[in-house]
Amino acid sequence: MSKKKIAILDSTLRDGAQGEGISFSVLDKLHIVQALDELGVSYIEAGNPGSNPKDLEFFQKLKTLKLTNSEIVAFGSTRRKGIACADDPNLESLLNAETNTVVYFGKSWDFQVTDILHASLEENLDMIRETASFLCDAGRSVIFDSEHFFDAWQSNPEYAMKTLHAAVDGGSHLLVLCDTKGGSMMDFIAETTKIVVKEFSNVKTKSGKPVQIGIHTHNDCGLAVANSIVATNCGATHVQGTLLGFGERTGNANLSTIIGNLELKKDVQCLPEDHLKKLTQICHRVTEISNILPDNGMPYIGASSFAHKAGMHIDAVTKNPFAYEHVDPTVVGNQRSFLMSEVAGRSLVLDKIKKFDSTIKKGDSIVAEITKRVKELEHQGYQFEGAEGSFELLVRKIIGKYRPFFKLHYYKTYGEKPRLDEHLCSFAQLKIEVEGDFAVTAGEGDGPVNALDNALRAALERFYPAVNSVRLTDYKVRVLDGKSATASKVRVLIDSTDGFYSWSTVGVSSDLMEASWLALVDSFEYKLIKDVEAKFKQFM
Amino acid sequence: MSKKKIAILDSTLRDGAQGEGISFSVLDKLHIVQALDELGVSYIEAGNPGSNPKDLEFFQKLKTLKLTNSEIVAFGSTRRKGIACADDPNLESLLNAETNTVVYFGKSWDFQVTDILHASLEENLDMIRETASFLCDAGRSVIFDSEHFFDAWQSNPEYAMKTLHAAVDGGSHLLVLCDTKGGSMMDFIAETTKIVVKEFSNVKTKSGKPVQIGIHTHNDCGLAVANSIVATNCGATHVQGTLLGFGERTGNANLSTIIGNLELKKDVQCLPEDHLKKLTQICHRVTEISNILPDNGMPYIGASSFAHKAGMHIDAVTKNPFAYEHVDPTVVGNQRSFLMSEVAGRSLVLDKIKKFDSTIKKGDSIVAEITKRVKELEHQGYQFEGAEGSFELLVRKIIGKYRPFFKLHYYKTYGEKPRLDEHLCSFAQLKIEVEGDFAVTAGEGDGPVNALDNALRAALERFYPAVNSVRLTDYKVRVLDGKSATASKVRVLIDSTDGFYSWSTVGVSSDLMEASWLALVDSFEYKLIKDVEAKFKQFM
Repeated sequence: MSKKKIAILDSTLRDGAQGEGISFSVLDKLHIVQALDELGVSYIEAGNPGSNPKDLEFFQKLKTLKLTNSEIVAFGSTRRKGIACADDPNLESLLNAETNTVVYFGKSWDFQVTDILHASLEENLDMIRETASFLCDAGRSVIFDSEHFFDAWQSNPEYAMKTLHAAVDGGSHLLVLCDTKGGSMMDFIAETTKIVVKEFSNVKTKSGKPVQIGIHTHNDCGLAVANSIVATNCGATHVQGTLLGFGERTGNANLSTIIGNLELKKDVQCLPEDHLKKLTQICHRVTEISNILPDNGMPYIGASSFAHKAGMHIDAVTKNPFAYEHVDPTVVGNQRSFLMSEVAGRSLVLDKIKKFDSTIKKGDSIVAEITKRVKELEHQGYQFEGAEGSFELLVRKIIGKYRPFFKLHYYKTYGEKPRLDEHLCSFAQLKIEVEGDFAVTAGEGDGPVNALDNALRAALERFYPAVNSVRLTDYKVRVLDGKSATASKVRVLIDSTDGFYSWSTVGVSSDLMEASWLALVDSFEYKLIKDVEAKFKQFM
Repeated sequence: MSKKKIAILDSTLRDGAQGEGISFSVLDKLHIVQALDELGVSYIEAGNPGSNPKDLEFFQKLKTLKLTNSEIVAFGSTRRKGIACADDPNLESLLNAETNTVVYFGKSWDFQVTDILHASLEENLDMIRETASFLCDAGRSVIFDSEHFFDAWQSNPEYAMKTLHAAVDGGSHLLVLCDTKGGSMMDFIAETTKIVVKEFSNVKTKSGKPVQIGIHTHNDCGLAVANSIVATNCGATHVQGTLLGFGERTGNANLSTIIGNLELKKDVQCLPEDHLKKLTQICHRVTEISNILPDNGMPYIGASSFAHKAGMHIDAVTKNPFAYEHVDPTVVGNQRSFLMSEVAGRSLVLDKIKKFDSTIKKGDSIVAEITKRVKELEHQGYQFEGAEGSFELLVRKIIGKYRPFFKLHYYKTYGEKPRLDEHLCSFAQLKIEVEGDFAVTAGEGDGPVNALDNALRAALERFYPAVNSVRLTDYKVRVLDGKSATASKVRVLIDSTDGFYSWSTVGVSSDLMEASWLALVDSFEYKLIKDVEAKFKQFM
C-alpha cells in the first residue's frame, strides 16, 4: 500500500512577507522559489499580483523560471461587493499571473461579513460562488481559503458551512480552513475539521473532482504546528504554512517542523522521495536570503536542535544517540553537535584540522592550543562557523603552515559627499611590500570598502595574477555590541569565489574598515594558499 | 464552583540553563527568582545543589530571600547504584538546600537502565523507591520526574508503570511524565497520560496524600506547548517548563504560552488572581536578565504578537480589534501595534499622521501620496517599521511641516591603517550652512561613521546647542542585496535618545557612509523639530 500523502503549500512569499523585519526583493523571491522547488513542496504561493508593483514584476519574471517539483500559485480574494467579477481589476491581475492554480480567500464568519465588509450574508455567498466560477471558467484550478473558518464555526456554523458549499458550487475543489487569528485549541480544531471532512466526503465539484479539505493555521497560541497535525489526523490532505514560520504577529505554521513530523512521526509523504534530507540546508538558505537571524532552536533544522550541553547527556549520546535524540539528525540533513565542553571543543577542532593535516592527533598539544585560541577569538566576537576560510588560515598560522603573501605599509580611505559623479564617492590608496618589491595603488568605489577592495586587488595582481579571478559574492556586517552605537564592534563576513570554489572569511574590529580589511585579506590569502597547494600537489 | 487549577513549575534556572547562549550569574538567578515569584508560579526549580559550586552558593543566598507566591524546589536524582541513600553525597547536598519540596528524577525506560546506567531493572526500582523514602523521612515533599516516560511506555509499559509505583511506594505524591527527547506526538501523549491518570486515580501515598500526575515536555517536534495542554486535558494537574522556553536543543515547554492558553482558552487557573496581566512585563524582564535577543513573535508576550502589517488586517482591526486578535492584548499586559510596510494601507498612514496633524482625513489625496511614497522607498530598500523618526520626517516633508535645519556643502571622510594611536583610525571633515552662516568642522573616531557623527555634531552645536544631549544608542547595518558584495546596497538604522525620549531613523544607499549619513541627519533633525515644537506649544 502506498503511503498517505499530504500536499504542502508554502506561503513564505505571501503570508510570510507580512512578518516583521521581512522585506523581499524580486531577486530574493526568485531565489526562494528555486529553494522551495528544490525542496519539493507541492505549491508555492507566490504573492498577490493585484497588491503592489513588486509582485507584478515578480510574476512576469517567474514565467521564465523552469520548476521541477512545485507549482506556482497566485493569491487573491473574492470579487469586491457590488461589482461583477469581470469588472474587478484584482481578479484581472490574478488571471494575468497565468498560473494553473489560484488561491482566493473569502469570508466565512458572519460577523466579518456584516461588520467589517458591510455586505449582506447572501451577497457574500454570491461573491464566493461567482469568484470560483469566474476563475474556473478561465481554466484555473481553484483553491478556496476560508478566512476565519474556526471563529466562523463558533459564531454561526450553519452560515460557515454555506460559504464552503458556495465555493464548491462555484467549482473550487479544495477548501482550506483558516485559523486566521490563531486562537483555536486543538480539540476544537479536531472536532470542527472532522465535521467538515465528513460533510464533503462524497461531494464532487461540477467538473467531477472530489472535494479535499486543507488547513491553514497561525501561531498565536504556540499551536500552529500542533493544529496542522491534528487536522491531518482528522482528514485534511493539504497544509498551508511558511517554511520557517514567517508571518504576521507570531507567525504562520512552520512547515519545516510540520514536514519533519508528518514524514518521520506519522509516516506521511509530503516531499518527493529522498528530499527530506535537503530540509536543513534549504531552510538555512531561505534564512540567508531573508537576511534574518536564524533561530538555532528551531525543531529539526536549527543549528542547536541536536546540540547537547549537559555533560550527562553528552556521555549518554556518545554511548548511544538514541538515548537523547528523537530522530537521527542526518535524515533531515542536520548534524549532532556538542557545546561548551573542553573535550567536545577538542573533538570539533580536531575534526576540522584533519581536513588539511591528517597527522594531527587529539592528544597533541597543538589541538589544545588551537582550541584555546579559537575560544579567545570567539570571546572577542569572531565566529568561525560561517568562515571556514579564516578558520583554516588561523590553524595554518598556529601549526606553521602559513606564509604571509604581502606586508601592508599603510592604507588610506577617503569618502565624500556630494559624489564626484553618479557612481563614485569613495577612494582608497595603499602600499604593500612583497619580497622587497613595492606596490602603491589606488582604487575608487561605491563606498569605502569597495574602494579598498579595488586598491588591494590592483596591488596584489602585480605579484599574483590569480587574484584577478576572485570575486566577492557577499558582504555582511553585524554590529556586535549595540551599546556604543557608531563606535560599536562589528563583525564582517565576506563570501568569495574564483569560479570553481567558494570560501568565507571573517574580520572583527571596532573600526568597520579594519574589520572589512581583515576579512578581505583573508579572502585573497586563502585563494593564494590554495593555488600554491594545488601547484605543489601537481609536482609531487 | 471554583476554577480548575494547574500548578506551574518553572525550570528556567535548571533545565533552562542548559540552553545555548544561556549562562546565569548568582545575581541573575536571584533576580529571576524574584521575577517568577512576582508572576506567581507555584514552584521555582532553582537548580541542582549537587552539580556545581555556583548552585550551592545560590541556595545559601536563596535562604535570605522572602517569597510571596512561589516555593523554591531543589532538583536531584535517585541515589547512585550500589550505595545507600545515606552515603550519597548528592542526596546530602539536596537536603542541605533545605527546601520543603524536592524534585528527583529516575529512569523509567528499561533501555536506559540496562544500556546507559548499566544497572539491573530491579535495582533501578529500589533506587527510585529508596530515594523517595529517604527524602520523605527527612521531611521533604517529594516530586518524582520520570525521565523518558513516553519512550519507556513504548518500549516496556509494564516496567515503566512499575517505576511510577516505586516512587509512590517510597512516598512521592506527584509523578511527572517527562518527554525527555521531545519526540512524542499529541495522540500518544493523550492516550498514555489517560492510562497513568486512571492507574493512580484512587491511589494514596503512605502518608495519605492523593497521587497527582504532572507533565514535562521538550520542543523537538515543535509540540511542547501542545503536549502540555493535551496532558492537562487528560488529567495532569502539574506542568513543568521554562518561562520563555529556554532549554537544551529546541528548548523546554514555553510556560508563558502555556499559562496564556490555560488561563484564557481553557479557563484554568495557573497564577494568583489578576496576575496574568504581569506576564508580558515579567517575560521581558527575564529576557533582559538572561541577556538574550527577545523573540518578538513569541505568543502572547512578544513585541510583535499583536502587531499588524497587512493593510486589510489593519483596516479591520481599526474597526474592531476582535476581527484579527484572538485575545485582548492588555489581559497579558501586551499591546497592539501597527507596522509600516509596502502592504500597509492608508489607515495606518493616517493613524500615524494623526499624531502630529489631526486635521488630515483618510480620503485626503495627501494620504494616498504618502502611502505611494512609502511604497516607493520600501522598494528601494527603506523600512520604516523600526524607524518612526524617519517616517515622521518623511510625512512632514510631504505635508509641508518641515524646514531643513542646515545645508550640507560637503563632507569628506578619511580612514587609515596603521592607526595613528590605539584608538584613532578615522577622520571626517565637513562644511554646513545655516541661514547664510557657515561651519567647517572636523571629527575623529573609531571608524568613519563615528568620525562623521562627531564632525556633524561639532558643526550643529554652534547653531543648535540641544544636539549636545543626543546620544546614539544603537547602530545597525543590513546589506540588502548580497550579490554585489562590497558595492551592495545597505540599510542603516540608528537609535537615539536625549535622555527623555528615544527615536529611530533609517538611511539606504549603496555607499555605507551615505546610508549612515542619512540616518544620522534624520536623527539630529528629528530632535531639533521636536524641540521647536515643544517651545511653540509653550507659547500657545
